[in-house]
Amino acid sequence: MSSHSTDVSVLGLGAMGRALAGTLLDAGHTVTVWNRTPGRDAEVVAVGAVAAAGAGSAAAASPLVVACLLDHTSVTDTFTAAADSLRGRTVVNLTSTTPEESRDLARWAERHDVVFLDGGIMATPEMIGRPESRLLYSGAAGAFDEFRPVLERFGTSEYLGEDPGLAALWDFALLAAMYGTFAAVFHGMAMVTTAGASPDAFVPRVTEWLGAMLSSVPYHAGQVTEGHYRTEVQSLDFNKAAVDAITRASRDAGIDTAVVEVVRRLVDREVAAGNGALAFSRIYESIRRP
Amino acid sequence: MSSHSTDVSVLGLGAMGRALAGTLLDAGHTVTVWNRTPGRDAEVVAVGAVAAAGAGSAAAASPLVVACLLDHTSVTDTFTAAADSLRGRTVVNLTSTTPEESRDLARWAERHDVVFLDGGIMATPEMIGRPESRLLYSGAAGAFDEFRPVLERFGTSEYLGEDPGLAALWDFALLAAMYGTFAAVFHGMAMVTTAGASPDAFVPRVTEWLGAMLSSVPYHAGQVTEGHYRTEVQSLDFNKAAVDAITRASRDAGIDTAVVEVVRRLVDREVAAGNGALAFSRIYESIRRP
Ligand SMILES: NC(=O)c1ccc[n+]([C@@H]2O[C@H](COP(=O)([O-])OP(=O)(O)OC[C@H]3O[C@@H](n4cnc5c(N)ncnc54)[C@H](OP(=O)(O)O)[C@@H]3O)[C@@H](O)[C@H]2O)c1
Ligand SMILES: NC(=O)c1ccc[n+]([C@@H]2O[C@H](COP(=O)([O-])OP(=O)(O)OC[C@H]3O[C@@H](n4cnc5c(N)ncnc54)[C@H](OP(=O)(O)O)[C@@H]3O)[C@@H](O)[C@H]2O)c1
Repeated sequence: MSSHSTDVSVLGLGAMGRALAGTLLDAGHTVTVWNRTPGRDAEVVAVGAVAAAGAGSAAAASPLVVACLLDHTSVTDTFTAAADSLRGRTVVNLTSTTPEESRDLARWAERHDVVFLDGGIMATPEMIGRPESRLLYSGAAGAFDEFRPVLERFGTSEYLGEDPGLAALWDFALLAAMYGTFAAVFHGMAMVTTAGASPDAFVPRVTEWLGAMLSSVPYHAGQVTEGHYRTEVQSLDFNKAAVDAITRASRDAGIDTAVVEVVRRLVDREVAAGNGALAFSRIYESIRRP
Repeated sequence: MSSHSTDVSVLGLGAMGRALAGTLLDAGHTVTVWNRTPGRDAEVVAVGAVAAAGAGSAAAASPLVVACLLDHTSVTDTFTAAADSLRGRTVVNLTSTTPEESRDLARWAERHDVVFLDGGIMATPEMIGRPESRLLYSGAAGAFDEFRPVLERFGTSEYLGEDPGLAALWDFALLAAMYGTFAAVFHGMAMVTTAGASPDAFVPRVTEWLGAMLSSVPYHAGQVTEGHYRTEVQSLDFNKAAVDAITRASRDAGIDTAVVEVVRRLVDREVAAGNGALAFSRIYESIRRP
């Protein structure tokens, strides 16, 4: 069957749910929608979506049901209410849930004869449908293969494995890297503004610098894989001197030191364990096995 | 005068001092070197450097003196011992010192009739002399202009202003951003390896993702500049839900949560202050004015 002939139901019409439904409508799918609070379906109904009176009747309308709600509780509430109609269908959960919560939903689905695929959206609503939008999936492999043409409507889609928690784990791992990076960028920005620089002046330098530094990530990952963390250059002792000095400079500048102190504590833990001569990437071990 | 005719003395022949001296020799300069512990000059003397018996005689040999020692104490010790010979010369301090320490060295230099330029090296020793090596300078503007052709030997050189602490401040701001980013990358890596992924598998995804996310730094900086932090998308309340979930998922995975908890505390502080409807970039204010 051609992919646009797959009918899809979308549960949840927040910013993301509306973007998902709109993208499917653009691609020619018949889309049935439901949202807890009435009225939020007006925008997509105006461009062709079919409004359902409840989650159950929405689920009954299509072989593929996409849920994009707030959190785990809203998903279990909605699935429980629609359980009878969901039986035999494939449900794709694009709500942000933790890996454990996604595994819990998969167990619920199994008990209720529902085929379950979990997904993580690495995109904002405006990006949905564009190639730079990325989605990670895990859970029922057959469902991913069967509905992949539909899922590709949302963005570049990747299947990570049968463990239904994998998509959320990778999603959160990438988000953790992003949030930590943003906090670190704001920290650097706060430092330079204490000497009168504008935030904008920091932008080209920090993005160019971090872009260059990201090219050393494969090297660090290689050290983690090898596991011996031997280095000829820039030992943890060397990095400790730098991180201590950055902490002092941050304190001197009168800004919050928490962002650098977290690095400092990781470095100190390794140095205290006698690993000062090893590579900086050794802090991975302190994170991995606290 | 043509730049290679400037004689240069290099104080300190650690990994970085040797790279600096070697690069100057390659460019045809007469280079006089000194290192506290004898014997570490052998490598550069073998390729043409002139060995000096003390910091004073090294300083006396050239109008431009480059110091690349361990830390602030080693610089003040060395400058104090060589004070008489340094009089009237230009000293460039490429030792990593905090902004306050650099300002302190500038005051010392002023008292001793020494022209002082402070520098921060955004490169490893192997990178010195290549265009991707970057150095930031601040302090005596005239000295930067006069010796710029020599300084450019080390890498792309930028002058930030008269405040001698500026180069160190920017250096440390960029390093803070780098260390925080690396810690965040290791955190994400630790998350995915708990589900059996290899560290190497995380590399292409996290570098591509962070590369894409860095393109939003100008937007965040713009919000900081405007200062009202109004947003239609992804409020701090939204980010709080995500960061809380990432923290839970990190705990569930059995890894250290410190890297995400620092972000969580910054977000919580803003939410507690009633700013939950504002943009994520508002955490800048919690860092800038703790
Ligand atoms: N927005 C993004 O940039 C983005 C990016 C990646 C992932 N996500 C994830 O996508 C999901 C949706 O995000 P969003 O931006 O669309 O959020 P949103 O605009 O806040 O929408 C939340 C949706 O969840 C519904 N909901 C909340 N509690 C419910 C309950 N107990 N039962 C049934 N429905 C309930 C809301 O319905 P009402 O209208 O009745 O309140 C609304 O449709 C979230 O998990 C989010 O983390 C979002
Ligand atoms: N390596 C890098 O990737 C890098 C990057 C950017 C900036 N830097 C900065 O460059 C500076 C030098 O780094 P490096 O890698 O060359 O370090 P290093 O290999 O450890 O060398 C340190 C140098 O400082 C000297 N020194 C230490 N204490 C001294 C004292 N009290 N009096 C006189 N000399 C003393 C040492 O002399 P002895 O031989 O007598 O011990 C040695 O020459 C540091 O501030 C570092 O932060 C380095």
